[in-house]
Amino acid sequence: MKWNEVIHESNSGLVTRHALDWESLAEQILHRGGSPEAVIDRLMELEIAVPSWGVCTGGTRFGRFPGPGEPRNVFEKLEDVQAIHLLTGSTPRVSLHIPWDRIDRLHDLKYHADSLGLGFDAVNSNTFEDQQGQPVSYKFGSLSHTDKAVRDLAVQHNIEVIEVGKALGSRALSIWIADGSSYPGQSHFRRAFERALDSYRRIYEALPSDWRVFIEHKPFEPACYSTVVADWGISYVIASALGKKAACLVDLGHTPIGGNVEQTVAMLIQARKLAGFHFNDCKYADDDLTAGSINPYQLFLVFVELVLAAEEGVPDFDPAYLIDQSHNVKDPLEDLVQTVGNLQSAYARALLVDREALARYQESNDVLMAELTLQEAFQTDVRPLIAEARRRKGAALNPLAAFRASGYRSLKAKERPQSEKTSGTFQ
Amino acid sequence: MKWNEVIHESNSGLVTRHALDWESLAEQILHRGGSPEAVIDRLMELEIAVPSWGVCTGGTRFGRFPGPGEPRNVFEKLEDVQAIHLLTGSTPRVSLHIPWDRIDRLHDLKYHADSLGLGFDAVNSNTFEDQQGQPVSYKFGSLSHTDKAVRDLAVQHNIEVIEVGKALGSRALSIWIADGSSYPGQSHFRRAFERALDSYRRIYEALPSDWRVFIEHKPFEPACYSTVVADWGISYVIASALGKKAACLVDLGHTPIGGNVEQTVAMLIQARKLAGFHFNDCKYADDDLTAGSINPYQLFLVFVELVLAAEEGVPDFDPAYLIDQSHNVKDPLEDLVQTVGNLQSAYARALLVDREALARYQESNDVLMAELTLQEAFQTDVRPLIAEARRRKGAALNPLAAFRASGYRSLKAKERPQSEKTSGTFQ
Amino acid sequence: MKWNEVIHESNSGLVTRHALDWESLAEQILHRGGSPEAVIDRLMELEIAVPSWGVCTGGTRFGRFPGPGEPRNVFEKLEDVQAIHLLTGSTPRVSLHIPWDRIDRLHDLKYHADSLGLGFDAVNSNTFEDQQGQPVSYKFGSLSHTDKAVRDLAVQHNIEVIEVGKALGSRALSIWIADGSSYPGQSHFRRAFERALDSYRRIYEALPSDWRVFIEHKPFEPACYSTVVADWGISYVIASALGKKAACLVDLGHTPIGGNVEQTVAMLIQARKLAGFHFNDCKYADDDLTAGSINPYQLFLVFVELVLAAEEGVPDFDPAYLIDQSHNVKDPLEDLVQTVGNLQSAYARALLVDREALARYQESNDVLMAELTLQEAFQTDVRPLIAEARRRKGAALNPLAAFRASGYRSLKAKERPQSEKTSGTFQ
Amino acid sequence: MKWNEVIHESNSGLVTRHALDWESLAEQILHRGGSPEAVIDRLMELEIAVPSWGVCTGGTRFGRFPGPGEPRNVFEKLEDVQAIHLLTGSTPRVSLHIPWDRIDRLHDLKYHADSLGLGFDAVNSNTFEDQQGQPVSYKFGSLSHTDKAVRDLAVQHNIEVIEVGKALGSRALSIWIADGSSYPGQSHFRRAFERALDSYRRIYEALPSDWRVFIEHKPFEPACYSTVVADWGISYVIASALGKKAACLVDLGHTPIGGNVEQTVAMLIQARKLAGFHFNDCKYADDDLTAGSINPYQLFLVFVELVLAAEEGVPDFDPAYLIDQSHNVKDPLEDLVQTVGNLQSAYARALLVDREALARYQESNDVLMAELTLQEAFQTDVRPLIAEARRRKGAALNPLAAFRASGYRSLKAKERPQSEKTSGTFQ
Repeated sequence: MKWNEVIHESNSGLVTRHALDWESLAEQILHRGGSPEAVIDRLMELEIAVPSWGVCTGGTRFGRFPGPGEPRNVFEKLEDVQAIHLLTGSTPRVSLHIPWDRIDRLHDLKYHADSLGLGFDAVNSNTFEDQQGQPVSYKFGSLSHTDKAVRDLAVQHNIEVIEVGKALGSRALSIWIADGSSYPGQSHFRRAFERALDSYRRIYEALPSDWRVFIEHKPFEPACYSTVVADWGISYVIASALGKKAACLVDLGHTPIGGNVEQTVAMLIQARKLAGFHFNDCKYADDDLTAGSINPYQLFLVFVELVLAAEEGVPDFDPAYLIDQSHNVKDPLEDLVQTVGNLQSAYARALLVDREALARYQESNDVLMAELTLQEAFQTDVRPLIAEARRRKGAALNPLAAFRASGYRSLKAKERPQSEKTSGTFQ
Repeated sequence: MKWNEVIHESNSGLVTRHALDWESLAEQILHRGGSPEAVIDRLMELEIAVPSWGVCTGGTRFGRFPGPGEPRNVFEKLEDVQAIHLLTGSTPRVSLHIPWDRIDRLHDLKYHADSLGLGFDAVNSNTFEDQQGQPVSYKFGSLSHTDKAVRDLAVQHNIEVIEVGKALGSRALSIWIADGSSYPGQSHFRRAFERALDSYRRIYEALPSDWRVFIEHKPFEPACYSTVVADWGISYVIASALGKKAACLVDLGHTPIGGNVEQTVAMLIQARKLAGFHFNDCKYADDDLTAGSINPYQLFLVFVELVLAAEEGVPDFDPAYLIDQSHNVKDPLEDLVQTVGNLQSAYARALLVDREALARYQESNDVLMAELTLQEAFQTDVRPLIAEARRRKGAALNPLAAFRASGYRSLKAKERPQSEKTSGTFQ
Repeated sequence: MKWNEVIHESNSGLVTRHALDWESLAEQILHRGGSPEAVIDRLMELEIAVPSWGVCTGGTRFGRFPGPGEPRNVFEKLEDVQAIHLLTGSTPRVSLHIPWDRIDRLHDLKYHADSLGLGFDAVNSNTFEDQQGQPVSYKFGSLSHTDKAVRDLAVQHNIEVIEVGKALGSRALSIWIADGSSYPGQSHFRRAFERALDSYRRIYEALPSDWRVFIEHKPFEPACYSTVVADWGISYVIASALGKKAACLVDLGHTPIGGNVEQTVAMLIQARKLAGFHFNDCKYADDDLTAGSINPYQLFLVFVELVLAAEEGVPDFDPAYLIDQSHNVKDPLEDLVQTVGNLQSAYARALLVDREALARYQESNDVLMAELTLQEAFQTDVRPLIAEARRRKGAALNPLAAFRASGYRSLKAKERPQSEKTSGTFQ
Repeated sequence: MKWNEVIHESNSGLVTRHALDWESLAEQILHRGGSPEAVIDRLMELEIAVPSWGVCTGGTRFGRFPGPGEPRNVFEKLEDVQAIHLLTGSTPRVSLHIPWDRIDRLHDLKYHADSLGLGFDAVNSNTFEDQQGQPVSYKFGSLSHTDKAVRDLAVQHNIEVIEVGKALGSRALSIWIADGSSYPGQSHFRRAFERALDSYRRIYEALPSDWRVFIEHKPFEPACYSTVVADWGISYVIASALGKKAACLVDLGHTPIGGNVEQTVAMLIQARKLAGFHFNDCKYADDDLTAGSINPYQLFLVFVELVLAAEEGVPDFDPAYLIDQSHNVKDPLEDLVQTVGNLQSAYARALLVDREALARYQESNDVLMAELTLQEAFQTDVRPLIAEARRRKGAALNPLAAFRASGYRSLKAKERPQSEKTSGTFQ
């Protein structure tokens, strides 16, 4: 696929109108005392990592309905990530998941990525599924398992994932464990926690000095009654016990439904323990929906915290931006392109917040005007801003339209014939 | 497996102690003005259907960890159900799921069931997964799909399931559809509802005159944003539109978390539209945990409504009792045996409620005493009652102990070698 | 307060800029195939009723912090509603609450309202508080109470409220009952429902032929365990039993948190039983926050359903728009002005949805494009549209700025000295 | 009221039957390998503090329905607490709330308490309501307020509450602040947290060396969008920053609905930061219902954690047991008597758990048997155990029956005429 041509072709039909819209918006922002160029600069710097598993159709326990042309291995996955990166200009890195991305030829992969202009973000370990021929099972836990042999296996796996990451240029390990219990009494909460902490410590010791480890919490699923790292409080206790290189990853769907995730983000910033994000959205559970699809205002409020922290110069503030979604009914590539746009939109709006006015209203408890200061920014139509940032990076003014026009999916459907159809987990 | 001998052997070591406990409890109940024999009679009449899928390990979208000796086809599943029935004396029927239970030899199956002393309860259709070679896909719905060809296929499948049920002696069709949407805008709510209602009508017309159809609602999963039959209100509208043979099935995990499911049960009784139950329990989502494992008091409160309705002689009150659980970390058979005990326990306690006193306290708004009337019944240790009911039916005093002592699982592990290991749906 | 002058003064400084913004937006809408003038027409027709209790500071069980200048009686409340109406051009009617609005002089009140250019919307009864000298108490219920004397009192009160409404020109009675139970066992669900239904029937019989009665449901609070009219299903059963003049009122905070209220709205439209709305927003419970303040996208999705129903010509579709908020930390008048703007914003965006495209994408299951069709409308900056609609009605371009500039609040603080300070309910 | 006589009279009619039941239960426990006497000993040691506000009827924002004979001042409140203590034998201390319990005559109060045989538990400050003549308002916060004058006032108030406690023999200060925000943007999360932490530090410095300070968290109410001390994570960060004398108080209704509060308890035990409890139960929000009334199994699971921690000898493990309920529809005294029974019931059942078996099953991941080990204990009818523990302390075998027979309430109704009727907060 000659993406440059695709993008050029797509943009050529849109650029005149875009110029008009952008000029009008820039003028409005200036009129309100903002700086459109400063926002553009920030937007152009925003980099979001794409998970390797994100370019495939996801599923639920009730089944999976894959589409045509999905990548069959990590090399093909990288091709797809490149497409997203070229279209949006904002996804230069991929986040691998081991062993889903079984890699025998690390040097080939690194070379492949280099040739596609891609790098590697945090690497993810997997101790929530058993692999063929595994000597002991993760059915009842991994890092917190009562059996030392299982814990050893899980620790060793994480250390191997670090090795993979080192070979590829990653700088962080992201750990999510499914350890927990499905019934009252199944686990001794405190002992399970102690065993998990001990395992995290062993992994932490194997971490290169310039790496970070991300601790991810989750209240439930697949464990139904309790999980060992259930909330940000536990994640914080662990990250504090481990040391400076450890911090807490916030998956937006891993907060109790309706909870105030933006405040949790603020508290982790306050504690210098915000590792970064797994972006997605949810309505009823950990739905892994497109970021911003259910409550775009909440996503904006999260970015407001990030912009405030950056502007105020909070020390060591450098969160990782990763996507973690499950594309069940949308084309995975289209969904990712849409996601990048939604994140940019939330970020751009957050950048437009009149922070001086906000601080003033907060200080004087002018509740309505403080709120309105956020709402004014949120109501701004930032589409021309995002398009302009893309244009300046040589990306597509309308990446979705460009993708659809490219014929990439149907091309890949021919190149990548699928062998099997995975069904749900009940059978 | 010679279950009679297993049970006899197991009981012989327990029966002396049991006689003591039972005598003591019976005396206590009499002392409080209750009738232990009346409770025993009801308990002995309680019949619960086991779902054919329930004898296998379930899974989540993060994987499945099956155990040894699981049944590999519907014939073996019936063997397992028989074991539960003989141990507990209370599960004489199985509820099939088509096409999970692919059946070419219906007569053989009927004969097999007869020989095991089992019958067939409601049959379940499946239009939430695609089958090999299916001409059109259920990815975007079934009974409510925008494409008439898909709706026709789904309606036709349901009619075929009725045919299977007729051949086997079932008297009800249970329909759960996964139709819905994962994103705002994906569905036109009202048109989707109209299409679904039309499809339900077509199935209803094919229903034999002595059959019933159970409409099951669910708020989410696998659809993440909306489902066509989301709550009991919609289910009720559909069942009312269809006619007398249609009623609403309550799955205890398909109510908003923390909601008052016992009141919903009461309202459906009031409206003469309670079809019956899918029993299970949940903490965070539709977890399909063992009934009574998270909130046993709630399960008791549901049975209080059932006992009240029966005692008051509500017309046409004849709910079906079915189990619908996902056994992820327990042995499926042990879990089902435990479940039957939990249901009996909730029922026995509900039968012990002093209904006259309750009515009097309710009438005079003596809140505390009305509540206490329920709590007194709930606090009663009904284990000897349940054991006695089992003993009189020739079942096991302690079915779990008997099952473990039987060596059934290890025997089946040898007889039923497993071929493959199903992993999660992400890959 | 000479509002005309205030508005004129305020607008004069904004109108030049507004003309620019409006022209630019109108051009954009036209470019996308929309009709800015059609949207303006609809916006100008939108009428929202203000509750009389809404112009005072609300409270929680932990206390109340009233501000200066709040109205001390229904006559002063109407003055405040007039201010909102003149500033926004969209709140021509007030919704009374009896007996909070104790009215001895109905003719004076009607005259007063006429002179202020205000009319009366639905009248609200109150059977959730005891009044001084009341012969029997509502502590344990009203329309569903076990004691007929209490039910009679509550029915009679509702009939008197109708009489008040008739004298003032109202055309609807809105009934919310707090009846329910705080503990399991306290209530016999079905009998309580039957008693309530009977009481509703008696009120219905007293309803003038050109009136409607709105049945409002609520899952909890003040009753903690169950409420007699808990959800839309029960409300629907009641409204259906009563007849054509009865329909279901949707308070946006009376749906389980995180539930899909827009689908409930659609189902009530489908069933021809949508009475209208109590607009507000919530995060954790029935918070009665400013509409659109927590999840503005959800409010937009509700309006999308309303616009679709109107466009499709659903018969008898004529929902009432009422506000029901509790202003605890904002100035009540400012909050109401903001609310009207938020409702207009949600409506304007819903009107901008390309309904043809949406239908096409829904029909072909192009999930992403269907969703995007909504998002494109939602992302549009409709502030100039709303301002233009206001300008054409002679209202304020920026009503909040005009209100603050007017000095109304400090003027009233002098005119309306407060006597007492209400504290919380614990003491 | 001669409680000794009341109790003697009440017990005399029950003791024969009790002896029978107790003997039978003791034999059963012994048969199962437990020690009934050990459980009795523990039960007799259990001490629960009664909040002074708990002896009055509570309310909701929709009103309050007080009953006759409620105490009108702190002296009368102590009389009521004494009644509960004599009837149950387990509530020797009262927890005051300042300034609800306005105390000019501290020496008199101490003398009064001494003469009633009562002591004082943790004292509670109140900075969520304004008092008459207060120079600045808590409307927008207290310990975290943006205005230093307000923070100073709130800090000073807490220090004064410590002084009251010192005079009365209390050993702990319990702080709950309502600080938070009702709208996005209202608060700067991190700055509000910093201000609050600074205020907590100032109070901590004033704490006597043998005192403890309890930090109470709450997710919402009265603040609707965020609270400064929203969850156990924030509470833990504060308690850790303050030092050894600070720990975290768990109110069972201040966890997200459906969340795993027993795990939170375990984590705080693990971190040596569990201060104690505010016992109650809830269904939909912070309902402050009778402990154990909605989910008695959960209350039992909390006590299982407490028993495990005590048995394992966790250092510094000494949680405070306080009740915090709102009695809206039950007689407050009866409700408190019932509550004590429910707490004893949960504790007794937790003490009956076969901890060795539990540990063994947990270690070997025998999920079902581990769960069953809890369930067996929970199903035990412990009423005779609790009655026996009461009997040995000279308290009532059936305290509710004794209370009703005593005529205490009607006596007090005459002695304590009520002046006014508090209504809800809306008006």
